[in-house]
Amino acid sequence: MPTIDAAGLQHLCSRLLECLGVNASEASFTATALVASNLRGVDSHGVALLRYYLEQLEHGDMEPNGEPELLHNSGCTALIDGHNSLGQIVARFATDQAISLTMDHGCGIVSTRRSNHFGAAAFWVQRINAAGLIGIALCNASPVVAPWQGKQGRLGTNPICFGVPGQSPFLLDMATTTVAANKIFNVHSAGQSTIPQGWALDKEGVPTTQTIDAYTGLLNPLGGYKGSGLAVMVEMLCGVLSGGAMANELGGIRFRGKPVDVSQFFMALDPKCFLDPGEYEQRAQSLSQVLKATAPATGYDEVLLAGEPELRTEAHRRKHGIPLADGTWQSLTDWATRFHLALPGVWAS
Amino acid sequence: MPTIDAAGLQHLCSRLLECLGVNASEASFTATALVASNLRGVDSHGVALLRYYLEQLEHGDMEPNGEPELLHNSGCTALIDGHNSLGQIVARFATDQAISLTMDHGCGIVSTRRSNHFGAAAFWVQRINAAGLIGIALCNASPVVAPWQGKQGRLGTNPICFGVPGQSPFLLDMATTTVAANKIFNVHSAGQSTIPQGWALDKEGVPTTQTIDAYTGLLNPLGGYKGSGLAVMVEMLCGVLSGGAMANELGGIRFRGKPVDVSQFFMALDPKCFLDPGEYEQRAQSLSQVLKATAPATGYDEVLLAGEPELRTEAHRRKHGIPLADGTWQSLTDWATRFHLALPGVWAS
Repeated sequence: MPTIDAAGLQHLCSRLLECLGVNASEASFTATALVASNLRGVDSHGVALLRYYLEQLEHGDMEPNGEPELLHNSGCTALIDGHNSLGQIVARFATDQAISLTMDHGCGIVSTRRSNHFGAAAFWVQRINAAGLIGIALCNASPVVAPWQGKQGRLGTNPICFGVPGQSPFLLDMATTTVAANKIFNVHSAGQSTIPQGWALDKEGVPTTQTIDAYTGLLNPLGGYKGSGLAVMVEMLCGVLSGGAMANELGGIRFRGKPVDVSQFFMALDPKCFLDPGEYEQRAQSLSQVLKATAPATGYDEVLLAGEPELRTEAHRRKHGIPLADGTWQSLTDWATRFHLALPGVWAS
Repeated sequence: MPTIDAAGLQHLCSRLLECLGVNASEASFTATALVASNLRGVDSHGVALLRYYLEQLEHGDMEPNGEPELLHNSGCTALIDGHNSLGQIVARFATDQAISLTMDHGCGIVSTRRSNHFGAAAFWVQRINAAGLIGIALCNASPVVAPWQGKQGRLGTNPICFGVPGQSPFLLDMATTTVAANKIFNVHSAGQSTIPQGWALDKEGVPTTQTIDAYTGLLNPLGGYKGSGLAVMVEMLCGVLSGGAMANELGGIRFRGKPVDVSQFFMALDPKCFLDPGEYEQRAQSLSQVLKATAPATGYDEVLLAGEPELRTEAHRRKHGIPLADGTWQSLTDWATRFHLALPGVWAS
């Protein structure tokens, strides 16, 4: 497992996107967003995705220089057509809109259609949080999840992401399935034959612990019917609201010949509409401290908030580099070779 | 288990609230909201709650005729002080505000502090949906849930409720725990010694299937760390945002000498800001149909959406009456006896 530093990795990814026709500034921004996810330890949503983006661009399933368009603006809401641009470019445009609407209305709600994979949702919520606002990001995804009691993929992993401004480490970014699809792909790639109970269902909708049955089967909604309900909620706010593709109309980054056609929902909310400046941040921090001070359950050393493990990983990886899975590194190497690009240096282990 | 019709039950509950000093119109509205939950089959959030409301009123822990106050309005947001009024009265005021703000801004976000138990969240989302708007309701609750990896109650069951306008039956109303606290109280009241795995943790934060350990222990967050994260998200939008009580500062409807001091978050969103009139409703209905048409998994007859079982129960109970748990009926009988009120007729079984 080679270890690469963030800047070198970002540069390579940016250059690869340029080789597929993406202009330099959009390529650089997209690469930065991907590497940010690796820095936080969320490798499933980092540069491992680049090979799919490159394939999409090469096969004409995604526009290298599409321009997101503001279709409609009313009150604190906006509807955006992504015109099949890179998801990161659409999401940047959309979060900028959400933040701007919040200045006038206290809240901004932005829906996008015809977008693409935007990497980790956390990146966009952090962008909203950095503007001093509470942030929410939702998106629909390829239909690999059956509605509860069903056995055909109709819903995506449909993540929910939420974060707050200020110093609280709390940042929730979760698929509405027990695990993200990538976890099963990774176990499969690694050749492990079994997975933990509760991760997946087989083709008949029956719980399975066999990796191969999970790979050809379905992801288990979080906690059963409640996770399924959350996934439907996300779709009602994404594909249904945007006027874009819904449920099994979506494509997927691993399948060629069809755009992904994903929809996203962004919300920014100004806590200064409710409390004095700085008060929300202070209260959010207090809540975090109260939760952290909870006596640990038997078997645990401490209470960890959502977002804390990622913060710690980021501190470490900024200093010590990003360890990349062999498969991811190989794929980047292959693409770099093809376009005669220099590879970033690998840290001595 | 006696069966009572909705109108008779509503009348008794309304009169009982009046006996504790609530004025007639607020009492009638509150009773209607509670009975609506019984009609939907959600008995844990129906008239079974009335005894606690009456006790709160009798002990001075809740104001019989408090008046919710609009503290602050900015853009599409509003902050309300419930002044310890009945939760239903605060929530009615808040949802009216949210709907009204939506007319001007496309969205309305309302936060309440110093509120009380508002019954089932679904009632408020249905109220928003009836105005042609997408609705969300969240609230914090008594600290009976430990943050994941902890063993002390710091979070509530913190429900998430979401619904859409139009004919789709989809209506999600879920605690962010595997089950609602009332389920464990009910199993305990019924004298059952065990509960299913995944419902609860004992005092040490270790999973248990013993009812007594669960009763003195903690509710299990939905799916573990993700449910815990969702509960924190809800608290960040309720107690933290409202400036009200947070986490273990809250009281509880079963404990005297302290107001419940709950906070709620309501959001209304106008789909006509994004799509043509009627289009969102039609698309939501289409999604529901696609999901319903999913082939059932082995062991199931059909795919059920969140909200469908409740719709079916409501159709049945409107015709055939509401079966009340013996304990609930006994409690209503005791209170009615005390205030010399006539009981509604019980249906012949």
